[in-house]
Amino acid sequence: MHDSIDAAGLKGRDFLSTQDWSVDELETLFALAARLKADRKAGIPTRLLEDKTLYMIFFDSSTRTRNSFETGITQLGGHGIYLSPDKMQISHGENARDTANVLSRYGEAIAIRHCAFGEGNEYLTEVAEHASVPVLSMQCDVYHPCQILADYLTIREKLGSGRGLKLGVAWTSAPNYVRPISVPQSLILMMPRLGIDVTLAYPPEFRLLPDIEEQAQANAAAGDARFEISHRFEDAFEDADVVIPKSWGPLVHTRDHAEGVRLIEAYPDWRCDANRMALGKDHMLYMHPLPADRGREVTNEVIDGPQSVVYDEAENRLHVQKALMALTM
Amino acid sequence: MHDSIDAAGLKGRDFLSTQDWSVDELETLFALAARLKADRKAGIPTRLLEDKTLYMIFFDSSTRTRNSFETGITQLGGHGIYLSPDKMQISHGENARDTANVLSRYGEAIAIRHCAFGEGNEYLTEVAEHASVPVLSMQCDVYHPCQILADYLTIREKLGSGRGLKLGVAWTSAPNYVRPISVPQSLILMMPRLGIDVTLAYPPEFRLLPDIEEQAQANAAAGDARFEISHRFEDAFEDADVVIPKSWGPLVHTRDHAEGVRLIEAYPDWRCDANRMALGKDHMLYMHPLPADRGREVTNEVIDGPQSVVYDEAENRLHVQKALMALTM
Amino acid sequence: MHDSIDAAGLKGRDFLSTQDWSVDELETLFALAARLKADRKAGIPTRLLEDKTLYMIFFDSSTRTRNSFETGITQLGGHGIYLSPDKMQISHGENARDTANVLSRYGEAIAIRHCAFGEGNEYLTEVAEHASVPVLSMQCDVYHPCQILADYLTIREKLGSGRGLKLGVAWTSAPNYVRPISVPQSLILMMPRLGIDVTLAYPPEFRLLPDIEEQAQANAAAGDARFEISHRFEDAFEDADVVIPKSWGPLVHTRDHAEGVRLIEAYPDWRCDANRMALGKDHMLYMHPLPADRGREVTNEVIDGPQSVVYDEAENRLHVQKALMALTM
Repeated sequence: MHDSIDAAGLKGRDFLSTQDWSVDELETLFALAARLKADRKAGIPTRLLEDKTLYMIFFDSSTRTRNSFETGITQLGGHGIYLSPDKMQISHGENARDTANVLSRYGEAIAIRHCAFGEGNEYLTEVAEHASVPVLSMQCDVYHPCQILADYLTIREKLGSGRGLKLGVAWTSAPNYVRPISVPQSLILMMPRLGIDVTLAYPPEFRLLPDIEEQAQANAAAGDARFEISHRFEDAFEDADVVIPKSWGPLVHTRDHAEGVRLIEAYPDWRCDANRMALGKDHMLYMHPLPADRGREVTNEVIDGPQSVVYDEAENRLHVQKALMALTM
Repeated sequence: MHDSIDAAGLKGRDFLSTQDWSVDELETLFALAARLKADRKAGIPTRLLEDKTLYMIFFDSSTRTRNSFETGITQLGGHGIYLSPDKMQISHGENARDTANVLSRYGEAIAIRHCAFGEGNEYLTEVAEHASVPVLSMQCDVYHPCQILADYLTIREKLGSGRGLKLGVAWTSAPNYVRPISVPQSLILMMPRLGIDVTLAYPPEFRLLPDIEEQAQANAAAGDARFEISHRFEDAFEDADVVIPKSWGPLVHTRDHAEGVRLIEAYPDWRCDANRMALGKDHMLYMHPLPADRGREVTNEVIDGPQSVVYDEAENRLHVQKALMALTM
Repeated sequence: MHDSIDAAGLKGRDFLSTQDWSVDELETLFALAARLKADRKAGIPTRLLEDKTLYMIFFDSSTRTRNSFETGITQLGGHGIYLSPDKMQISHGENARDTANVLSRYGEAIAIRHCAFGEGNEYLTEVAEHASVPVLSMQCDVYHPCQILADYLTIREKLGSGRGLKLGVAWTSAPNYVRPISVPQSLILMMPRLGIDVTLAYPPEFRLLPDIEEQAQANAAAGDARFEISHRFEDAFEDADVVIPKSWGPLVHTRDHAEGVRLIEAYPDWRCDANRMALGKDHMLYMHPLPADRGREVTNEVIDGPQSVVYDEAENRLHVQKALMALTM
């Protein structure tokens, strides 16, 4: 396995967005992920990164991301160090340049989650500029590329090749917490490149960053797929093969928190239920990156029902990230 | 060693209470713990769980439990991930079902400490219901089974077989912190099953859960041992082979914190000192799960004295938990 | 490598200050650090501490120290456990004696950072007294020995043998945070023992502990080197081979925080800039343990300039600490 990994030529590469990787490079990653998943099922050890260290800097809390990365590096024979800025000296004058340079001298990769709107991507980019080891995004304010890798692997496992499928990405109403826009943005960027038609549905105030929506359009053209935006919830479901209904904040529209919550509450009917699920194809998959706001975003009937593949999707975080680490570190 | 471990048939089993395991199964665990302890002393590697991941979710702080579990899994060749709910997304809508399902897809076991009265055991039970990997208790509001495994191993090492010995479990007065009742409850449940006579002494307001006391009575009958409750401190010491004097809160009597502290302070004389120690057999062991409230629960003279085996007891946490992990994971 | 490490006779030794180790013992450590550094560059595995556990107790935050220790033990095949007192039961009555005894039963070494003035060294000393495994300082209020080991290795790598060189240690003005005095104290203690002439420059209110300054004088005599104290910033730079300009608090003079900040602000001109750098030899190295308060302690031009070796210095933390662990654990 070592030989084919080295031959991929991805050692040392950053991964801040799927946009930075070619379709061929992404396919290399999916192939390795599938192989690592099979090896794990068969109990075959995969110590590809023995005694290597992955730094995981979390500006925001996490269950899936932290545990899938830390378990993944363990299964590859290496070690993950969980870091949060309050336990580091970022508050004592340490800038991104220092953090990047110092950690590059000690270990083999730096993974970062930083979702603060208008700050996260900038920070990751600055660390990547100074680091001599790969910098891997664990989600920023703009992108959540590892989630989307897992989503695609799940779709391909369940429905065969993704090409020609219809994916609905729908905004949902969940006012208890203003969520980032990185998941829908990463979905509309990558899926059309791999030939999946995407319908994105949101109320007008919940649009995504204009240049991301434009890039998605360009990606669809290049990938010979369709990308369209609708302001009608049901459009994401009708005749779809896969639907990913998920809440996010009106961050492009307003940065005012109270106004944001008010807007989220203005569309209580944007919730995934059995009636909406019935609009899709019979085999339509329900996906969600979790944690879902049960009752608000989705009914228990749907998320715990037979079309839901949320735990398979969560599991695939592990496999795609192991492939990512094995290829870049 | 692998063969005998597999033959034990305990792979995949939960461990929320010693009550769920038969006496034979517990004996298998003690035998393996003794063997792992001897191997460690001899410097023999025991990589029984290579690259396997143990999740350790702590709702409450810990020294012994966290370090003995994390060091234990390290010595078995695996990796422990320390998790606290504030760093996870439990606060963002993640329920026990999601946590259980997701972690089951990544790693090999989930250990949990959750001592909030009326909540902890319920949470562990719910995670265990949904998890496809073993769930191990690191203490809940009702049980602290790993502590009691360590206690028993210590008694057997120091005094030979436990059968026929008298163990005194005595409440002590330590008002600075209302401690859980899980330790005395687990002691009275398991020790009589293994043939140890137990005298439990507490002031009336400090009784344990009625159904636990009843179960202890039934266990004593089945184990051909004696279990009795007294409201006189000295009864736990007189003619005893082992004494475990330890504070706990009047949780069954009252949930009011101020009232609880007042009640604890009402019995300042329930403290283990040299006079009380003199009531036991000459070889009587002093044990305590630590941390002890020195001066209030016990005099320094006793806890640092020749009858105290508190550090041997703490050490045995490591060995019994390594056996537990090796058998179930 | 195992044989020569065992022959060094340092197994089980504490490391709270360089003062406790002979010059020969320190040289053994530097030689092993250089070898481990070369092995890492060559990709040669160095699993000298397989499955061994290092406890890292942090009373204060850290980037370099935590990551270099945890990555270091990983590269040696072992495991580091990051502990902070709020996650332990130190707040529930656990004293240094209990912590020392219990952790000694589980793992192979205890590393501690505790910088609170008047408390840290006392705590480390008490743990060392009770622990049966080595206790390693990760910085206290009096000493920061690992930093100084890294500094010396860097000097020797860059300038050959240290003997006869002039090192300037200069106080700088950085009012946003009252920093410990352990770094300058450890510098003036060890460097003269290895034959390096030291000029220590600070405003009168920023003197170090009197007995440390006296010990430095004695060390210089024994090491056939010069140690002098000046109250003029430039004296640390003139004709120097290496300069380490670094802020610290007036802790010996006053414990009043507001007064401390006022005093730090009274000397704004104590900042390392290009003009001061020009006073040294052409090859003069600029060093700093990081994080530096850019703009206050040092200009960006200097710290990011060609004479700065701060990242090499940070990297060497990894190598000296790996040597330290391999020798003592």
